[in-house]
Amino acid sequence: MSRTVYVNEEYLPEEDAKISIFDRGFLFADGVYEVTSVLDGKLIDFDGHAKRLARSLNELDMQEPCTEEELLEIHRQLIARNDLNEGLIYLQVTRGAADRDFVYPSADTKPTLVLFTQAKQIAISAAADSGIKVISIPDERWGRRDIKTVQLLYPSMGKMMAKAAGADDAWMVEDGFVTEGTSNNAYIVTHDGTIVTRHLSTEILHGITRAAVLNMANEAQMKLEERPFTIKEAQHAAEAFITSASSFVMPIVSIDGAAVGTGAPGPIAKRLREIYLEESRKAAL
Amino acid sequence: MSRTVYVNEEYLPEEDAKISIFDRGFLFADGVYEVTSVLDGKLIDFDGHAKRLARSLNELDMQEPCTEEELLEIHRQLIARNDLNEGLIYLQVTRGAADRDFVYPSADTKPTLVLFTQAKQIAISAAADSGIKVISIPDERWGRRDIKTVQLLYPSMGKMMAKAAGADDAWMVEDGFVTEGTSNNAYIVTHDGTIVTRHLSTEILHGITRAAVLNMANEAQMKLEERPFTIKEAQHAAEAFITSASSFVMPIVSIDGAAVGTGAPGPIAKRLREIYLEESRKAAL
Repeated sequence: MSRTVYVNEEYLPEEDAKISIFDRGFLFADGVYEVTSVLDGKLIDFDGHAKRLARSLNELDMQEPCTEEELLEIHRQLIARNDLNEGLIYLQVTRGAADRDFVYPSADTKPTLVLFTQAKQIAISAAADSGIKVISIPDERWGRRDIKTVQLLYPSMGKMMAKAAGADDAWMVEDGFVTEGTSNNAYIVTHDGTIVTRHLSTEILHGITRAAVLNMANEAQMKLEERPFTIKEAQHAAEAFITSASSFVMPIVSIDGAAVGTGAPGPIAKRLREIYLEESRKAAL
Repeated sequence: MSRTVYVNEEYLPEEDAKISIFDRGFLFADGVYEVTSVLDGKLIDFDGHAKRLARSLNELDMQEPCTEEELLEIHRQLIARNDLNEGLIYLQVTRGAADRDFVYPSADTKPTLVLFTQAKQIAISAAADSGIKVISIPDERWGRRDIKTVQLLYPSMGKMMAKAAGADDAWMVEDGFVTEGTSNNAYIVTHDGTIVTRHLSTEILHGITRAAVLNMANEAQMKLEERPFTIKEAQHAAEAFITSASSFVMPIVSIDGAAVGTGAPGPIAKRLREIYLEESRKAAL
């Protein structure tokens, strides 16, 4: 069955959803994106994603394609038109189409706005029950990882390296410390029960799910520490996990072949996943 | 007047030249490109560009979209159909269209092939006569700059930073040494007449024009040294210049506001530009 997708003010069957070959998203990776989860036909943390999108656009001197209210309406239309109960909505904004030039086109160039749905079972997850395996790889990405650009070739290569090694994902390492996963933030739980994740900077994505989970952990009076950690520390930690909009909280049970903790999902990751799903469903739009 | 462009086996008016929103070039910057110059309706260094394209594709486990002979024929068709006497032909290959997933799509996914022309006066150039100004900026790109991917957002930002500073381009600096320009290789000429340019590695693009110019300089018995240099050394050099497929050899007359040499294009850069244009025209296809 063909999806209905959104491209520049039109709702179209996915087969007809096209952009110009001169789009700067295609020629220069001059675009940013967001992925918002849908549970029970409702949007999880829409506000967070809309605000981060505005920040990404601002950092790159790109125009907002429409208001936050209009964006919300497009998301809701796509849920309705595709009868989406559970899954993801992908959104991409680019600087628009113009003859190829490294110099940005004139400020009145219309940004490109594309959204599409992906139906997917995400709340109940076999991977969350069993935990996933990661490998470590060097972090070869550009320097502004806080801007959510479509320059995703290296993360994509990282997923392939993980797959080739019989793992599910990769954690990237820079100057001896873990930055983050290929499309998620990385955490460990120390043996005294402290949740540790890297501090925010230009070196990592400012995860919307990261912010929500840290907030919930704080409210549940869990111990938190924002600092870098090494692969070795992670391998010897009590637990490890990742967070992202599409995986929520996902336990890690092995890093570079070494079992983490008992080699099964740990209680803190499980509890955070439960809290996150419960709170998110309550606040969903 | 509308150009005729090439998209996946079709010659189309540029207004109709579109790709799927699911193209991985658009969603993941999962694509590579080449730009070949055209002089007198003929292709400059086509073989070099075709070979580098094959290398880029191979490094990313991407399929070749067609044979080198077929690529040459498409280039020639575009020259003929657009009556192109002087300018550029841009070529881009992506891993093709597939539902969005960091994991590569199945190996039988058809790569996307796009080519278009840009008419432009490139041999006779006011910029080459007067020389251009560059600023230095930190090199914030990803680690595999030897693969000519479309992850060009940072070089594009660099051109904008240069423009904002009243300059023409930017040289990128990493660990204290110049890597290259935003879309070109960087050179200096020392006071004893030695041409210095950074050695090949994953840190810079393996310029086709770079290879040709070094070869011609060598044949003309000029002194060459492949090693990194600093901005300070460049500011105090006798000459500075860049090379690229679209600018050939372009003199630099100012770096971060400091005049290089006499503040006018130097004799070695001028001579190399002449030799390059002369030899390239002879060997053009």
